[in-house]
Formats: sequence, C-alpha cells, structure tokens
Amino acid sequence: MSPNLEWREPHIVPLDRSVEPRIRAVIAGKAKPPGSLGRIEDLAAQLALMWHPDIPRANKATLLVFAGDHGLTEEGVSAYPSAVTPAMVRTFLAGRASANAFSAATGVDIRVVDAGVAVDLPEHANLIGAKIRKGTANAARGPAMSSAEANAALAQGHRLACEAIDGGADIVAIGEMGIGNSASAALLMHRLAPAPLIDCIGAGAGQDEAGMAKKRAALERAAARTAASAPLEVLSEFGGLEIAMMAGAIFGAAARRRPVMIDGFIASSAALVAIRMRPAVQDYCIFAHRSAERGHSLMLASMKAAPLLELGMRLGEGTGAVLAIPLLRAASRLFTDVAALEDVLTGKI
Amino acid sequence: MSPNLEWREPHIVPLDRSVEPRIRAVIAGKAKPPGSLGRIEDLAAQLALMWHPDIPRANKATLLVFAGDHGLTEEGVSAYPSAVTPAMVRTFLAGRASANAFSAATGVDIRVVDAGVAVDLPEHANLIGAKIRKGTANAARGPAMSSAEANAALAQGHRLACEAIDGGADIVAIGEMGIGNSASAALLMHRLAPAPLIDCIGAGAGQDEAGMAKKRAALERAAARTAASAPLEVLSEFGGLEIAMMAGAIFGAAARRRPVMIDGFIASSAALVAIRMRPAVQDYCIFAHRSAERGHSLMLASMKAAPLLELGMRLGEGTGAVLAIPLLRAASRLFTDVAALEDVLTGKI
Repeated sequence: MSPNLEWREPHIVPLDRSVEPRIRAVIAGKAKPPGSLGRIEDLAAQLALMWHPDIPRANKATLLVFAGDHGLTEEGVSAYPSAVTPAMVRTFLAGRASANAFSAATGVDIRVVDAGVAVDLPEHANLIGAKIRKGTANAARGPAMSSAEANAALAQGHRLACEAIDGGADIVAIGEMGIGNSASAALLMHRLAPAPLIDCIGAGAGQDEAGMAKKRAALERAAARTAASAPLEVLSEFGGLEIAMMAGAIFGAAARRRPVMIDGFIASSAALVAIRMRPAVQDYCIFAHRSAERGHSLMLASMKAAPLLELGMRLGEGTGAVLAIPLLRAASRLFTDVAALEDVLTGKI
Repeated sequence: MSPNLEWREPHIVPLDRSVEPRIRAVIAGKAKPPGSLGRIEDLAAQLALMWHPDIPRANKATLLVFAGDHGLTEEGVSAYPSAVTPAMVRTFLAGRASANAFSAATGVDIRVVDAGVAVDLPEHANLIGAKIRKGTANAARGPAMSSAEANAALAQGHRLACEAIDGGADIVAIGEMGIGNSASAALLMHRLAPAPLIDCIGAGAGQDEAGMAKKRAALERAAARTAASAPLEVLSEFGGLEIAMMAGAIFGAAARRRPVMIDGFIASSAALVAIRMRPAVQDYCIFAHRSAERGHSLMLASMKAAPLLELGMRLGEGTGAVLAIPLLRAASRLFTDVAALEDVLTGKI
C-alpha cells in the first residue's frame, strides 16, 4: 500500500477570460480566413489562456492509465471477471494493449498506475504503485471506500499529474482499466449530473440483456442505500479507486495550469466529480471523444462539455484521449508556426 | 510548363471483400471488447484489405498541397484576389501556413505542387513544378481547360502520388490552395453528385451576401453554358487544375493500393470526379472531415462517404486530412501492436 498522502484541495486559478479577446484577435489575424479552423481555434484559445502570458506549447503528452477493481462485480454488473483487470495491466506493461498502440501512433508516453487492483501486482519499471486498497467494497451493500481512502486516492492522482507535468509533459491524458467501473461511473453520474439512474446505465464492456438486468438491479440497490449528494461523499459511496485518482489528476493538471485530456465515460465521471467539487477545474479539461456507452452524451451535457471526436469508441484505457492529442498539438502551433495574414499579404513572408 | 505526360487511366483493383470476414475476426479477437474501437476498427479493416495479404502499415505520410488559379475569379466569385494563391504558396514554402503547422504536429511530410498558379513561381527545393497552364480560363464564359490539359493534370497527379508512395509514404493526403476553387468545386458537384446548383454553393473563404450573389450568378451562367455530364468533360469545363491533379493523385494511390486521405470540400470534389470516372477508387479513399462549407455534407452523401472528423473547419490546404492521419496510424497498429484476447486471458502476455 502506498503512503496515504494527505489531500488538501489545491488552489485552482480559473482562466482569465478578460484576455481572451486579445488571444482571439491573434488567432483571427493568422494567414487563413477568420474562423476557418473551427474548433481548433477554440482549443488554441483555451490553451493560450492556460499558458497566458506565455506562448502555449503542447508537444509532450503523458497518458496515465489508472487501474482499479470494483466490489460491485460480485453483483454480476460486468460481462468480464475482475481477473481481467490485472491481466490487462500486464498487457499494458508488455506494451500490447490498444492504449499502447494508440500512444505509439501519436507519440504519447504511457504510464500505468495501480490505483486499487484487487491482487498484488509484480513490480515493473513502468508500473506506478499507488494502490489505496485491493479493490473497492461492494457498493450495493455499503460504501465503496472510506472517506480517508477517497482522499488518499485524490492526493495520489494529484501528485502523479503534477509529477508528469513537472517532468516535462505539456498535456496530461487520463484513462482507466477496471472491470465493473462503468457501474461505478453510472452511480456517480446519477447522483452528480444528476440524472435518472436508468439513463446512466449502459452495456459497459458488453453486457447482454440478462447482464443488464443484474446491473440495473444492483445499481438500484446501491442508489437506494444512500442519499449522499456531496461530491466527495458520493465518490466514497460509489467508488472507484481509479476514478477517484483520475479526479485527483484533473486537480493536479488544473493546479499546474495545464490541459488534461479526458477519455470516455469513466474518465468523464472522474471529471464530473472534480468539476462538482470545484467548477474552475473545467477550464483545464478537454473532453476527447463521445463514447458509444449509453449515458455519456447526457453526462457530457450535464457539464456542458462538447467532445472533440465521435468515433463510436467505448474501450476506455485512454484510447480516445490519446487520439485527440494531435488536435491540441495542432492548435498550439497556430501561435508558434503560422504567419500573420498581414505579413503574407505585404510580402514579408 | 511541365511535360504533358499522357494520361491513361491506371488499372484499379477493387478491395477483395471476400477476405474481410477473416480480417474482421482478427480485429474482433484483439484484447478488447469486440467492436469497442468503433470506426477505428472499420479503418483497420479497410487498411488491411488494401495491404492484403501483407500486414498493413500506416506510418509515413505525405501531404501533397496542389495550388492553382481560377479564371472564375474574374466574376468576383471569391472574397480574396488571385494574388493570394502565390502568396500562400510562398507561405507554405516558408513553413508558415496552417498546413505546415498541422503537418509538423502530426509528423507528416508536406510537398507543395504548382498545378496551375497564374504567375511564375521562383524555384524552390520544396516546390514541385507541375504547372499545366497559368490558371484556368473563366468557366463562366467557356471551358476552364482543354481536354488535353485535364488529362495532363490527371497524369501529373497520378505520377506525384505514385512517387510519394514509391518514396516510402504509406499514406498520401491531398489538400489544395486556389482562390476561387470552391466555385469550381460547386460546379463539379452540381453536375456529378448531381445536385441542384444552389445546394452546392457556399461562402468558400468567406463571401459576404453581395459576394454570394455574384458567385451564384456566375455559376449559373457557367452551368447554363454546357450540358456536360461525363466526368472528364465536366472536369475540363469547370476546372480547376489543382482539382484535376488531386483526382489524378487519388488514382495514383488507388493504383498503388494505398490509402489517400481526402481533405474538405475542394479535395472531395476531386474525389467525386475520380469516383465517377472509376468507382473502385473509392475503396482507397478516406474522407478526413466534414467541412463547414455549405454543400460538403450533400457532396459526401452523394458518395455515401462518412468523414472521420467534424470540427467546423473550412480552410483547405490539407489541414483536415492531416488531422485524421493519427487515426489511421492508430488503426494500423491494431494488427502489429495489440495482443489477442486469448493470449491475455491464458497468461501468454
């Protein structure tokens, strides 16, 4: 078990929107019809606001994949057994998962974090041991974790994002692996979006109709068990450890004034926790893609978030987050690479 | 002027869909829930079909930016004067345009091709001289180019794509720069989609209402002038030289059985020409993004094409094409990098 760092919510500075008109004027003055780069221009402005008064940079990116297990799997909420979580951690460490492939394709560093896998994992140079406990408790029967454990997970996530940034990352991306975590995310969404529970439950990694009935019944029991509505309390009640750690990582990126690329349904539930705790962190969140998981669109809408990509993906692992990173890199280069239209038209280029 | 290569439509081998079930089974057997990578899986299958029986690869990519001028600008169809075309060519060569920035962000080689800029351009190591003529004739008054010129442009485009691939590119991306070319593309779309002319005309680089009226009137005169409907004839009637050369590049990529990433409205009009000439080339086309240019959605629908990205972009230059290249790279790595689920579950990884 890792040392229980103490969590104290970091100071988050909201973006100073008063300088946005100046930044927008710079973008509009580039050698292209005004507005012709659409959402890339919005990304460029958001990034410039984070870096202000410095010129933004978005080259080096680190994907943190947080792994954790879920006591809820006892209720049959997932199509796969918990043993798949450590098996996939081994696959990440062997460089053989989709997240590795996509990270290699986009030049992103990938780090795997044991946030709370239910079994002991062998040491590995690329595995960050930050286990809070061996999986959450079964949230259908009681709190998934203690308040102290939720706080420790937040603190670890914060630390890891800060370390990535202090180590040179311009962008932090967050993804996860945890059998059962779409159930946990659905409960967080239900209470924090908020939204009717039924609209929050999807097939996750691929539940069939019978499995979906079990998932719905278990989540109804979990929801009925507690009226918790404060974000930290909801997080402790419903888990998971990897979700709590992702929420902490979002705080870390925001504290460092750097962008955090949010993956799909599960990572977005971590963003929902972080944003409900401290709305200003959203200024630093970039929602990478719209997952095919039922509920993601409504979850995004509850944060007024418009994702960049829509590719029908629903894998997790940070695969969607990584695919959006080139868009952010392209946006940053508007400031450093692209000439002003005036210089082109007056023959200075 | 470049030598008039003779155009003879190359032999295009359609993808052999009979092997698709085998390819889909490989993808489905990877260490992830089946179907969970959505459109990335479709891309992977398309790429594998192109490379069959070899393992697909999608690393090195070359963006060819074709530049050409348009006689139609005499009619006031564009918000910008023709002089902007060579000014932007200089900007590409100086590495200071959006296309350069996005290519740098995604690790794509960029080459600029003078397909038919109206003025002489100084020699430059990164400029490929393939000028067919100094801009098209005014298509509102007569054919934009002769049939021989259209054929020469197709041949040059074919040659350049083949050279890029023979030089090591796994992917060819096509983009353009040409003041007035959204007018030319609208006419091609009108006749080849086919679609009512009014639905094909958009603001291009940014026409105001008065400019749009001029554009509509000029294009109505051009359309009324000829009843041409055969693709090559339509291409000669309405231009442009850069569009013809992009159509040739699509043939070149298809002949080499390699993917060609199609940019926005103008590049898609080149795809429309190529596909109407020879439907099998579409197997090798990947439509990168949905442009904000009015008409693009209908044009894509006329080819039953579903673009990968939707970012509200309408710049051209290949900026959209380049941004989709990481998706194709990620798709290709499913075959080379990602373990089979069976190997993960049996502990072989």
